[in-house]
Amino acid sequence: MKRDVIVTCAVTGGADTTGKNPNIPVTPKEIADTVAEVAAAGVTMVHCHVRDPETKKESWKKEHFVEVVDRIRDQGTDVIINLTTAIGVMVDFDSNDPVGLDPVVTDFWRPERRLEHIEAAMPDVCSLDVPIMNYSDSPYCNLPEHVRILAKRVREIGVKPEIEAFDLGDMWRTQAYIEEGLFEEPPMIQLCMGVKYGVPATTRGIVAMCDMLPDNCVWGAFGIGARQMPMVAQSVLMGGNVRVGLEDNLYLRKGVLASNVQLVEQAIEIIESLGSNVSTVSNARKALNLRIQ
Amino acid sequence: MKRDVIVTCAVTGGADTTGKNPNIPVTPKEIADTVAEVAAAGVTMVHCHVRDPETKKESWKKEHFVEVVDRIRDQGTDVIINLTTAIGVMVDFDSNDPVGLDPVVTDFWRPERRLEHIEAAMPDVCSLDVPIMNYSDSPYCNLPEHVRILAKRVREIGVKPEIEAFDLGDMWRTQAYIEEGLFEEPPMIQLCMGVKYGVPATTRGIVAMCDMLPDNCVWGAFGIGARQMPMVAQSVLMGGNVRVGLEDNLYLRKGVLASNVQLVEQAIEIIESLGSNVSTVSNARKALNLRIQ
Amino acid sequence: MKRDVIVTCAVTGGADTTGKNPNIPVTPKEIADTVAEVAAAGVTMVHCHVRDPETKKESWKKEHFVEVVDRIRDQGTDVIINLTTAIGVMVDFDSNDPVGLDPVVTDFWRPERRLEHIEAAMPDVCSLDVPIMNYSDSPYCNLPEHVRILAKRVREIGVKPEIEAFDLGDMWRTQAYIEEGLFEEPPMIQLCMGVKYGVPATTRGIVAMCDMLPDNCVWGAFGIGARQMPMVAQSVLMGGNVRVGLEDNLYLRKGVLASNVQLVEQAIEIIESLGSNVSTVSNARKALNLRIQ
Amino acid sequence: MKRDVIVTCAVTGGADTTGKNPNIPVTPKEIADTVAEVAAAGVTMVHCHVRDPETKKESWKKEHFVEVVDRIRDQGTDVIINLTTAIGVMVDFDSNDPVGLDPVVTDFWRPERRLEHIEAAMPDVCSLDVPIMNYSDSPYCNLPEHVRILAKRVREIGVKPEIEAFDLGDMWRTQAYIEEGLFEEPPMIQLCMGVKYGVPATTRGIVAMCDMLPDNCVWGAFGIGARQMPMVAQSVLMGGNVRVGLEDNLYLRKGVLASNVQLVEQAIEIIESLGSNVSTVSNARKALNLRIQ
Repeated sequence: MKRDVIVTCAVTGGADTTGKNPNIPVTPKEIADTVAEVAAAGVTMVHCHVRDPETKKESWKKEHFVEVVDRIRDQGTDVIINLTTAIGVMVDFDSNDPVGLDPVVTDFWRPERRLEHIEAAMPDVCSLDVPIMNYSDSPYCNLPEHVRILAKRVREIGVKPEIEAFDLGDMWRTQAYIEEGLFEEPPMIQLCMGVKYGVPATTRGIVAMCDMLPDNCVWGAFGIGARQMPMVAQSVLMGGNVRVGLEDNLYLRKGVLASNVQLVEQAIEIIESLGSNVSTVSNARKALNLRIQ
Repeated sequence: MKRDVIVTCAVTGGADTTGKNPNIPVTPKEIADTVAEVAAAGVTMVHCHVRDPETKKESWKKEHFVEVVDRIRDQGTDVIINLTTAIGVMVDFDSNDPVGLDPVVTDFWRPERRLEHIEAAMPDVCSLDVPIMNYSDSPYCNLPEHVRILAKRVREIGVKPEIEAFDLGDMWRTQAYIEEGLFEEPPMIQLCMGVKYGVPATTRGIVAMCDMLPDNCVWGAFGIGARQMPMVAQSVLMGGNVRVGLEDNLYLRKGVLASNVQLVEQAIEIIESLGSNVSTVSNARKALNLRIQ
Repeated sequence: MKRDVIVTCAVTGGADTTGKNPNIPVTPKEIADTVAEVAAAGVTMVHCHVRDPETKKESWKKEHFVEVVDRIRDQGTDVIINLTTAIGVMVDFDSNDPVGLDPVVTDFWRPERRLEHIEAAMPDVCSLDVPIMNYSDSPYCNLPEHVRILAKRVREIGVKPEIEAFDLGDMWRTQAYIEEGLFEEPPMIQLCMGVKYGVPATTRGIVAMCDMLPDNCVWGAFGIGARQMPMVAQSVLMGGNVRVGLEDNLYLRKGVLASNVQLVEQAIEIIESLGSNVSTVSNARKALNLRIQ
Repeated sequence: MKRDVIVTCAVTGGADTTGKNPNIPVTPKEIADTVAEVAAAGVTMVHCHVRDPETKKESWKKEHFVEVVDRIRDQGTDVIINLTTAIGVMVDFDSNDPVGLDPVVTDFWRPERRLEHIEAAMPDVCSLDVPIMNYSDSPYCNLPEHVRILAKRVREIGVKPEIEAFDLGDMWRTQAYIEEGLFEEPPMIQLCMGVKYGVPATTRGIVAMCDMLPDNCVWGAFGIGARQMPMVAQSVLMGGNVRVGLEDNLYLRKGVLASNVQLVEQAIEIIESLGSNVSTVSNARKALNLRIQ
């Protein structure tokens, strides 16, 4: 069992959820303010998407990312900053002809475009999803050619990629990418548990994923929805890091809307009740061998 | 451990492999002749693709499927016939611009078209793949809307679908499809082990897949390439059925090209050495609750 | 994951631990008072040994057990009472000649004698250990003949046996005892995790034990020492009940001595943080099909 | 999956089985002759008990062991010789009073006496059982003090101990013995699967045992009775060595009595059908780091 647990808070996410929970931060300032709060509550890392202040929906404007990162750093918040790159990878079929011969493919981006905000904002860490999978009944396609381009570029600029795996095949693929030499030591792996339809967020699911972890990696796991806190406990019990936050789960308990701080507090309570403790930022920086300071 | 094991031979497949192993049957007559040979060697079921007699590459002409099935039945071969439906589901990106904004999607079919040869040939069983996954570095996309249409139509015409699962998420999806009531009892599930990048063809891989099997299903597993015979043994040890054949593996042992009959003989030798035996066709028909006679 | 979790507190135990933690109750009155406290804190069941008020060491005097049970019932504490029967089963070799030809076997009791206090005190539940194992470097020998006699007699008098299993072989043995018809439905099974040298108190250990659970049983698990709270979380995550208390663990956290109430509170906090809740006594009575009222 | 598999034949055993299968060798000459036959059939190692030529029951006379070893070496059989030390470790209770207060403990030996035949015969390897467990309804007690004495002495004389583990607790115990520094590198571990009541001879059973294997050990597994050949396949699939022979299993298949050679031939057939091969004696000597030449 891990003693020193890196706790990440995924504060806002990109799904159209702001109407369901008013605690989801929207503007760069709200996001940076939330980051300050969860850092004060003890988190080691924050994972951020950004939102359009008008529509409140996911945005990919690099100026929003830059503003979030600049505000976090300017306000002196001691936290590791992790930005998403999961954009432009859904294959959307024509909704008027979902079973048609000629799907209209939209929103599929060159990998270079997926890194513009990273190169502009220079976070410590960015996500790097590896699956091709069913996600919300649409193909979620991280083409291997794209993953390789993303991995090489973030290595050049010194941003640590957090590999996100959603099923056993992604673990196998990750092993192959590691053998190709794509990543600096140690590889950093996030097990995304309970996304329909990937690995379920169960004990047996996480054991099967862990059976395929490479040696000497830094890994964690998170669960979606009501499986968020169970996966906090399960990951700690298996020796992993944890992630909570309103991106993955809107409720503190059945029927009770959560805030990011409340989810962080509950996660830390679980971690400590199991005899572990939260990693400091500086210990986590060392463990992850981060290059951005 | 299973006592009565259904042995399937996948005699030809659709990959461009005929240049690598001359024992792969090409014409409908060659395929039907091979089916007679493997039936004589003891198999319970055959899984067939068809090939263009000229190019030797995969064909989807329904007349080839009809000829294969008619020949098998006319020659009186006692075997369960299982035809593929895995066509028109690859999303191929423009090879000149593999990382482009505007992928050219080809070869994506309406589900109705994927069943034309099934409705014409009326086999006992047809495959029904469920994954959206990375397959040979391309997205292999069985859209849920399509799977549902395929499942409903084969149920109407009385052909048993063999659900093919490639990773844990497919097992979860299969459970959901079963809850939707898509399939007649018992569901028939094939665990496809070792396809890059799905579940690896290992003991731990098959245990993780079996942890998610629904109650009262008929299931089997097969492995790709050099993992074919290990997965025969592993599936029998876990209580499942088996599949061998030149579709999945070209070699009898390292450096020695196989024939379908040799692969079947080796599988049966393993099954019997483990204290089990090969199911008769009539027992398998009962176990699977087949409707075509 | 289980929603309705039976929480047991093992308040005192039989090991020579009172010098290490002053919160361990000794006299029947102290034990009954502790039971009242942990019941107020929310436990569903208490597991009791008794101690000699003078020596503070384990006692097997039936009057102590009777006094404990009577006090609990007289004071109106709403809790399921579970008494130990784990006595007279150590094979102790001559400490002056530990490797001698002629071990002196002491303290090995007829099973009838092991039930005298049960028949006198008539608790709801009593433990029924099944292992022959190494325990503190001595053979802990629950001879099958004895187990059968114990099981039959407690069934006659209406006390529910809680089968205690310490390793995979005990699970197999339990399956055999169930097939012999020794137990009323549902069998009640306790997985004792982390006792040296049985199954380790790990995620993989509990998964392996759960792989061998009989259908339709009521089961729980507990861990020893610092593994107590991790096994609370792990059992809940696997769908089981939990046990805490000073019998199994003396510390709230490293270096901080616990009280029974504190351990119960921490367990309940974990259970609720995982989205489950503590079973009421009356629901647990129904689930266990208890006969003593 | 292991490529180079050490195959052991346990040719005779100590159970009272000679009346059930006439192929079990009894006299030292018969045992040595059988060893020559199984060596010719391809085994890497033989595991031997000896029998009284008159009664045909197990014998512990060192002259029988010496004669067996001398005959094997004199006849020039190229095989690794492994002798049992599993004697004097059953705690037998008075059969007239099986539930009595005062069990009569018989047949419990000082560890020095358990090594007399080893020191006289000087085999390459000897077994070293670690469990305290239920075995045929009697306590099978390898007291830790005894195990330590045995391990130290065989190390002094240069005989390699083969640690025999029967359940998860034995694996934990073995880890502790390794940490104590009891064994030379690499530790050699035999997983004894399916002995009632230890770990069952199933896929999940062997996975749970393998989860606890120490790094850099040489390990194998065997199954009892009808689980012998299944465990050959399962061990190879998990990367382990194998053991067959009339000690563990009397039948080639249901109703057909086996000879040692037939069991060896079947095991080798399974190994080769899975793409592995039998280790040579000299490779196995190197892998095990044997000192006796």
